[in-house]
Amino acid sequence: MSDHCLFCAIVAGELPSVKVAEDDTTCAFMDINPASDGHLLVVPKRHSTDLFDIAPEDLAEVTVVAQRVAKAAVEELGADGVNLFNCCGSTAWQSVFHFHLHVIPRYKDRVKDRLRLPWTPEVPGDPDTITALGDRICAALQA
Amino acid sequence: MSDHCLFCAIVAGELPSVKVAEDDTTCAFMDINPASDGHLLVVPKRHSTDLFDIAPEDLAEVTVVAQRVAKAAVEELGADGVNLFNCCGSTAWQSVFHFHLHVIPRYKDRVKDRLRLPWTPEVPGDPDTITALGDRICAALQA
Ligand SMILES: [Zn+2]
Ligand SMILES: [Zn+2]
Repeated sequence: MSDHCLFCAIVAGELPSVKVAEDDTTCAFMDINPASDGHLLVVPKRHSTDLFDIAPEDLAEVTVVAQRVAKAAVEELGADGVNLFNCCGSTAWQSVFHFHLHVIPRYKDRVKDRLRLPWTPEVPGDPDTITALGDRICAALQA
Repeated sequence: MSDHCLFCAIVAGELPSVKVAEDDTTCAFMDINPASDGHLLVVPKRHSTDLFDIAPEDLAEVTVVAQRVAKAAVEELGADGVNLFNCCGSTAWQSVFHFHLHVIPRYKDRVKDRLRLPWTPEVPGDPDTITALGDRICAALQA
């Protein structure tokens, strides 16, 4: 447990939250600033700062719990789809520095659903740039 | 392998792609409509439609590979953070129906980074509504 960590306090029950699932290593609870009806967070109980800090086994467990919670939320709430979303670093919109995976049910009904598409995926990139960046990442993985 | 699936064809090498990592069960390659410089996708080699269809063990492996690829991309490209993103269902912006996890390096430099925040996280939801929705999801998980 990390001092002054909002999500460690929620996991420990020291701060109130609406928990929907909990096991030995993970905890799922409602987001209080929801992007849509049923917006949840899944966190590891063991404190880790972000995607780069979390142990791979904790990450795998959080993700599989998120899959299970997402199915339950979509079926129960009559949603039309769901997004999983993780933010690593303040530039990537992380605001609480305890790893968390957003589970965001999606609806055709725009009252229940406040998300807007965060980029324009139909705009193709420059193929040469993409290839050069890919080659660099590939080489970095093998280094 | 699913007929007429774009990502099955990429995995099989029948369509060109810039692959950055590959193992027995997963494949990581560059997105051709990048939201930022270094935008990648990680997919299971075994075809599954979406988050609800993918086997939990494939999901766990894809996610752990995404963590490794994200670290390499951020370090190599000098990014300031990274997002993981999954879209399940067309309402949730899924356009290719073979499960894929987006790995999107993020930059303070807005030329390298075309993402805009998809919701306004500082807007609190109604606490009673959140609690009621959470209770329903919790009950559905136990049913
Ligand atoms: Zn914490
Ligand atoms: Zn496929």
